[in-house]
Amino acid sequence: MKIFGLIYCIAFTTISHAQIHPIAFATGTDMELVKKKLKDNYLLAQSFEELKSQVDGWIGKDIDVPIPKDAAGGYTHDKHKANYILLFNSGLLYQLTGEKKYAQLVKNVLLKYSSLNPTLQNHPQATSSSPGRLFWQALNDANWLVYAGLSFDCIHDYLTLNERISIANGAFNPEVDYFTKDIKSWFDLIHNHAVWACAGVGIVGIATDNEDYVKMALYGSNKDGKAGFIAQLDGLFSPDGYYNEGPYYTRYAILPFYLLANAINNTSPSLKIFQYRHNILEKALEGALEQTNLNGAFYTYNDALKDKTFITNEIVVALDIAWQVYGYKKSYLPIAKSQGRVILNSGGVSLSEALQKEKNIPLYYPYKSVEYTDGANGDKGGVAVLRNGVAPDLTSLVFKYSSHGMAHGHFDKLNINLYDNGNEILQDYGASRFINIEQKCGGRYLPETKSYAQQSIAHNTITVDETSHYHGDEKESERNHPIKLFGSVGKGNVQVISSLDSTAYHNVVMQRSIYMINLPEINNPITVDFFRNISATSHQYDLPFNYLGTVISTNFPYTANTKSLTTLGNANGYEHLWKEAEARVSGKFNQFTFLNHKTFYTISTCTNDSASIYFTLIGANDPNFNLRNDPSYIIRTKGNNETYINVIEPHGNFNAVSEIATNAYADVNEIEKLQDDENITAVSIKIKNKTLLIIQTNKDFDKTTKHFFNKGEYHIEWNGPYYVTFDNKKIN
Amino acid sequence: MKIFGLIYCIAFTTISHAQIHPIAFATGTDMELVKKKLKDNYLLAQSFEELKSQVDGWIGKDIDVPIPKDAAGGYTHDKHKANYILLFNSGLLYQLTGEKKYAQLVKNVLLKYSSLNPTLQNHPQATSSSPGRLFWQALNDANWLVYAGLSFDCIHDYLTLNERISIANGAFNPEVDYFTKDIKSWFDLIHNHAVWACAGVGIVGIATDNEDYVKMALYGSNKDGKAGFIAQLDGLFSPDGYYNEGPYYTRYAILPFYLLANAINNTSPSLKIFQYRHNILEKALEGALEQTNLNGAFYTYNDALKDKTFITNEIVVALDIAWQVYGYKKSYLPIAKSQGRVILNSGGVSLSEALQKEKNIPLYYPYKSVEYTDGANGDKGGVAVLRNGVAPDLTSLVFKYSSHGMAHGHFDKLNINLYDNGNEILQDYGASRFINIEQKCGGRYLPETKSYAQQSIAHNTITVDETSHYHGDEKESERNHPIKLFGSVGKGNVQVISSLDSTAYHNVVMQRSIYMINLPEINNPITVDFFRNISATSHQYDLPFNYLGTVISTNFPYTANTKSLTTLGNANGYEHLWKEAEARVSGKFNQFTFLNHKTFYTISTCTNDSASIYFTLIGANDPNFNLRNDPSYIIRTKGNNETYINVIEPHGNFNAVSEIATNAYADVNEIEKLQDDENITAVSIKIKNKTLLIIQTNKDFDKTTKHFFNKGEYHIEWNGPYYVTFDNKKIN
Repeated sequence: MKIFGLIYCIAFTTISHAQIHPIAFATGTDMELVKKKLKDNYLLAQSFEELKSQVDGWIGKDIDVPIPKDAAGGYTHDKHKANYILLFNSGLLYQLTGEKKYAQLVKNVLLKYSSLNPTLQNHPQATSSSPGRLFWQALNDANWLVYAGLSFDCIHDYLTLNERISIANGAFNPEVDYFTKDIKSWFDLIHNHAVWACAGVGIVGIATDNEDYVKMALYGSNKDGKAGFIAQLDGLFSPDGYYNEGPYYTRYAILPFYLLANAINNTSPSLKIFQYRHNILEKALEGALEQTNLNGAFYTYNDALKDKTFITNEIVVALDIAWQVYGYKKSYLPIAKSQGRVILNSGGVSLSEALQKEKNIPLYYPYKSVEYTDGANGDKGGVAVLRNGVAPDLTSLVFKYSSHGMAHGHFDKLNINLYDNGNEILQDYGASRFINIEQKCGGRYLPETKSYAQQSIAHNTITVDETSHYHGDEKESERNHPIKLFGSVGKGNVQVISSLDSTAYHNVVMQRSIYMINLPEINNPITVDFFRNISATSHQYDLPFNYLGTVISTNFPYTANTKSLTTLGNANGYEHLWKEAEARVSGKFNQFTFLNHKTFYTISTCTNDSASIYFTLIGANDPNFNLRNDPSYIIRTKGNNETYINVIEPHGNFNAVSEIATNAYADVNEIEKLQDDENITAVSIKIKNKTLLIIQTNKDFDKTTKHFFNKGEYHIEWNGPYYVTFDNKKIN
Repeated sequence: MKIFGLIYCIAFTTISHAQIHPIAFATGTDMELVKKKLKDNYLLAQSFEELKSQVDGWIGKDIDVPIPKDAAGGYTHDKHKANYILLFNSGLLYQLTGEKKYAQLVKNVLLKYSSLNPTLQNHPQATSSSPGRLFWQALNDANWLVYAGLSFDCIHDYLTLNERISIANGAFNPEVDYFTKDIKSWFDLIHNHAVWACAGVGIVGIATDNEDYVKMALYGSNKDGKAGFIAQLDGLFSPDGYYNEGPYYTRYAILPFYLLANAINNTSPSLKIFQYRHNILEKALEGALEQTNLNGAFYTYNDALKDKTFITNEIVVALDIAWQVYGYKKSYLPIAKSQGRVILNSGGVSLSEALQKEKNIPLYYPYKSVEYTDGANGDKGGVAVLRNGVAPDLTSLVFKYSSHGMAHGHFDKLNINLYDNGNEILQDYGASRFINIEQKCGGRYLPETKSYAQQSIAHNTITVDETSHYHGDEKESERNHPIKLFGSVGKGNVQVISSLDSTAYHNVVMQRSIYMINLPEINNPITVDFFRNISATSHQYDLPFNYLGTVISTNFPYTANTKSLTTLGNANGYEHLWKEAEARVSGKFNQFTFLNHKTFYTISTCTNDSASIYFTLIGANDPNFNLRNDPSYIIRTKGNNETYINVIEPHGNFNAVSEIATNAYADVNEIEKLQDDENITAVSIKIKNKTLLIIQTNKDFDKTTKHFFNKGEYHIEWNGPYYVTFDNKKIN
């Protein structure tokens, strides 16, 4: 709290006089630079022209500011959304062209809002716990406030004093008052919606020279630092920049963070807001970028939509501002290039110039293995991405042992997701939502997000007794998290993370170790997954692999339900799964091969004793066709302690154009559990008739402790929590 | 038969002396040209280097020529396949480098085949009616013969006379004898397999200076012209180049056509084989190219695999040879560019030079509306592709009223398929097959091809009484075809094809008219579909729309089968459909909106009286997971005469990245059938509250006949088979 105190004092004194405008999005000097560079900078000019063509269509027209009525996707919702974008763009164009028609447009529209806003009560479609006024939820009102504030700042000097007062009192004050008084507890949350609210109030404060607003934005409605922007910077990110809600929502939250920080930095550079918490905003941005697939799509754990990529506007803004404040980074260039546009301030100028100059822009972000802690103090588990290869031949395995992630979190303790060659192999369903398509529940999250997508069975982790983690209780989940036992990420032939959770179920301890291993003579990295479930009582354990692809073969017979289908269960997501086929297997060594795009994948599994296997298809109890018909491969065991040893192996290639299939069969041909108890798990895996041996400790994870393994042919001693050999040679 | 006679005589005399070699794939002069151009032609050099690196890995190694044992996808199958490619490539490299190691490799391998081939009987895995010897089916042996023959030609002068005799007698003669004697009736078919066989025998004939082989290749095993290559050129294409089996198989068949024609053209240019039947081979190639989606994938009607695009080797070879013999065509450049390689003869040189020189290579083939007749005489119906817009914003509707298309044909009379913006909207399932993946039935066609994919219900056309066209009898289907009634393709705002079939069902006449219409104020072309079913007796009619996409909304309530699923029927493909939801509707105006990629599509339907609607999902009775879980929207009526008026309307846009959905609702809001009888069908359609009126005649299709329509507000007189107005203005 030392840094906070410092910032608090400076801020208080710095913004105590009326500003020179514009200042919130860009300064006058920035604007001059943009104007100058427009001539010979292709991308900048194109971004400018895009903006101009969008705005020019509205010049001279009467712009509707309708009485709020519709839910998301409906006319009044879309109109107010379009209006705030138009306001900002037109304000910017006024600055960049000096043409009064743009300022006039902004003024006229803001004056209309000055008449409308004081008359508003809660939105008629408000179903949210934080209702909006212009929109169905307050979040959208906060969006409006940010952009309307920025537009006001752009035309500040064009307005007469009376006009400024009218707009400040009429358009802005009712919204700010509503946020900071009526729904004050919402405004003071440590939550992405509240970040938007603070950005709105802060930017309006800067634009209208209202010091009080700025203070509330930075320090909460009580101005005591317990809430507000600084508290959000402290509370929403782990020390290494992991954002509590995961990458999809980082993308969303990062925009108000960067917009307000940028405005604060322009007005009060001495605050060094971008350096706060060891550049936490830089880490946050890069934490989101690292967690994307090769097509730029954010990893879809927690509520997330699969189509959302880093070309989205939020990341354009953040990247350009980051480029300005943190300096040149080659890693940003492929992203900026695929974004294909820049913002019209000095960050945009500088980034677009770099794109123009740089001869060899890499095709991909330089993805590497990463490990993030979760929690403001980094003590609430974490998320690791184990990677191997170089894009586009990149394998990325996400292992999630973090805390819940607020309202958009899923019950997915110890979940894994696998991406390979840019494709999703073991998916996280994400969320069920068609954003802003009115026919689909007003574009909101669909009920199946809760009933299916958030449930444990929708994830590649264990569900005990057909009940989701924490019995699906979000609050309970928020209070708990797994712990990391040991790990090594990013170097050598063996990467590993081991994590333990004893909170998701009262009587079951789950321990999962994920090894990503490079073997000589094997083209692709293999993933070995030790999933131990320990309980004093007997339970049913279900481990799904939510694969995407086509069934190629199994090494066991199964019974297909060919004439009729019923559901796998009745609740907790099971009611959404059609049971397509089932098998009863010995458990010793079961293989399932599927094809995803051009690559074969085989999951080989060894369980303690016999198991049941289910092939399922999502789609039951989905009367509105909200879910995708995706498959799953579920391995069910029953007992007290049940350990799954899984090997996930990409292999071969299928080229449908040249009609050639190579290595369509798995290389793994045996898994033997040598020992599995409270001290040690030791497993030998035959791959191309050579032996991969993995021994891990289950109790003492100290790197210096000496351990022994004596069994049959093996007489091994080593230090630390794990030991790996291939063909009798140590490889870790 | 005049042309044939001429060719026959010339051929007989021309190839009566020993040739200078090489000559079959390319002449010595060609080879010199390639060598010269390798230095400064990037694509040519790259294609050469690819070939070289493939072959160089085998130099000095003992190449296995195993005793045939495995089915497709197995070791001996893949090895013999790899061998013939290696033989050809190595032979070519000998010509291009002069290095004897390449000739040595070819000689050694061919000598091994000389030992093996005389010992062979039918392949142990032969399940085909035309069994192979090296492979499970004779077709693959024919492939082998083509490439082995080409390789022999390349090293002809390197071989001693004795070696030539050994190889000709040992490697080639048993295969040629087997084809032309043992399975002579297969060799003499007018069928793509036999084209390969003729190409093999012909090329070996040219390579080994065996005039008799060449004659059998050109004129059939009896050398009487009733079979063989010339008869195939006559019999397999319609006068405008439509290949009887459809574009996917044109792609396959075109390679032996072009390879043998090229060899014949080199040895006997006076035959003018490429000019035969008014350049039928040029028309055939372009007929296949026109029938591709923007990603290059061949339209998937008949048995076809969706991944197959024009970058496939067959089209590389055909395109490069066509470029050489038919000359420069800008339309070929985008295809050559996406192929990214050329063949190493003078066609390849010239095409790669053009790619290097041409500054503005278009992104897409210049797709246009096309209409092909089917049948050697063009009198067996046809296929039309109605198009609108310019790629990538191209709408293509395929209307198929052709004959069956041999063994790979489907029971799909009057079927339509819709492609838009490069996406499949109303799909043809294609075939069920994982080519060369051994685990999937040896890579052969899967049983579900016959049980589902070929059945009528798998298509966007009518199934009567749950029985496929012609009761699923291929021979019966082969004997019949629909007829075209009238049409106008490629010009104006109204394109139309009307076709009638009275053969698929004994008691039902089906008449379908497809109108593709451009309307002012409407961004996308709409498709209006009059589907009339006429019978003296009552039947059940099912019209499916095999849409791809996500259900967005319907304007009618339906009952979803949420707890259990059963099949829609028990046979003829119905047993593969899970019945997900059903509705009973009045029939007057039913709308269904779905989202495919970024575009919404609405199907609006008006039926005579009440109808049942089914939402289905493919996947029942599919124990090996061979089928894709694709959806269908099926409209069922019952009665004697049942007319469906359907409007298919692309609209709006959904951008998941910017989260904006526009025009998510259909513009069509009413369909009224004004008249529908043996004389006239007249329909008014309300679109954005304006009226689209379409009147067609059902009896007299003469363009000059005068017709009258007097009903209510309408008093219209016109000439010809159809008349279209929008907002009271004539638009056709």
